[in-house]
Amino acid sequence: MSTRIRTVAFDGDDTLWHNETLFSMTQERFRALLAEHVTPEELDARLLETERENVAVYGYGVKGFTLSMIETAIEVTNGKVDADTIYRILSFAKDQLRHPVELLPGVAETLGSLSGRYRLLMITKGDLFDQESKIARSGLTERFDGIEVVPEKDPPVYARIFARYGIEPSEFLMVGNSVRSDILPVLELGGQAAHVPYHLTWELEHADPPKAHDGYWELEHIGQVPDLVARLDGGR
Amino acid sequence: MSTRIRTVAFDGDDTLWHNETLFSMTQERFRALLAEHVTPEELDARLLETERENVAVYGYGVKGFTLSMIETAIEVTNGKVDADTIYRILSFAKDQLRHPVELLPGVAETLGSLSGRYRLLMITKGDLFDQESKIARSGLTERFDGIEVVPEKDPPVYARIFARYGIEPSEFLMVGNSVRSDILPVLELGGQAAHVPYHLTWELEHADPPKAHDGYWELEHIGQVPDLVARLDGGR
Repeated sequence: MSTRIRTVAFDGDDTLWHNETLFSMTQERFRALLAEHVTPEELDARLLETERENVAVYGYGVKGFTLSMIETAIEVTNGKVDADTIYRILSFAKDQLRHPVELLPGVAETLGSLSGRYRLLMITKGDLFDQESKIARSGLTERFDGIEVVPEKDPPVYARIFARYGIEPSEFLMVGNSVRSDILPVLELGGQAAHVPYHLTWELEHADPPKAHDGYWELEHIGQVPDLVARLDGGR
Repeated sequence: MSTRIRTVAFDGDDTLWHNETLFSMTQERFRALLAEHVTPEELDARLLETERENVAVYGYGVKGFTLSMIETAIEVTNGKVDADTIYRILSFAKDQLRHPVELLPGVAETLGSLSGRYRLLMITKGDLFDQESKIARSGLTERFDGIEVVPEKDPPVYARIFARYGIEPSEFLMVGNSVRSDILPVLELGGQAAHVPYHLTWELEHADPPKAHDGYWELEHIGQVPDLVARLDGGR
């Protein structure tokens, strides 16, 4: 095989560490908090609608999510929600932001196996302060040759990273759980991408995986990445 | 003179564009909103206290500020604030995030005069999504050879930027309004720094300017930067 991989990049949230699970836990607490006012289904639908409207102004992350929860709580109760309830929502946000970072199974071994043989990057999207805090607490900083926190993962953003590191797209493999953010834009630029699904996906992140496509790989867990890289490298 | 400047870096908020003015306007609206419950002085003091506690978990930016305003509103009213009032605070946040970016006087001319003769960087602190949005709306992106949005401006962060761009500290001049973030850490690393004060400073950003110090310059406005650089370059 002629392909050669020089750079392997990993997404952070739900690829290296659990994240959507924490949003899901917070949202469960939010449902319980407002259970006397609204059904869980109605609340979820209204919250998603609010988030969809707000993402253009707040971006991604826990703080914007919290502001959207407060807005939704006021709207679904027609302004009858009391201050104590809002205060509880603020405490959910702080709990989530302070929650320990839990690595996914196989992450440490996978990075250890690739380290020194490939340039390893982390490319993660979201709130800068929260992401930097999670990266620090993950203990993974030293494993990476570069860490990029970006506000959005689209082709221009990946192209800027390629330029910054002098990356030839065909020699680049992106590993992540989001088809929309980690797979499609990289394929569009001629890179390679391995999809490692997480059991939860935020609805605003949803996209259908590509059908057969050169350079696209569907994996079951991150522990399969070293074998894939070795295979792409023709057993080097 | 032996000094030679190769890289000139600019802070964003309150150096290139107005920012603290917008926080100040929002806080004025917040005071008016709660005027029946609490005096402006008491509210300011309580909000500052809340922000001081929350900055470690929220970081900098409008979203964290808004969450702190909501928390303060609930606390100063002993939970009596109504949902409509909280909703108004949410609308203040959106107004501020959507506010047009207004460049400070002399910015365009200064960047135009230095462009092409020096490597120009923007090094700005805060919420990534909000900063990227402001940078895009400022129309200044093309003026810079590199833009770095960082969660905190301390010596390790500047050292990482120096490494990334291959910057020799003595050939680096940082221009900014914050003594704490733009001046002191750069001087500590052996770089040069020009302080251009803004008429408002957030209390959590306050620091006393250094006394006489090699490589430290106090300017009145950003339009004086090209002359300073020419002088440091020995009239090159």
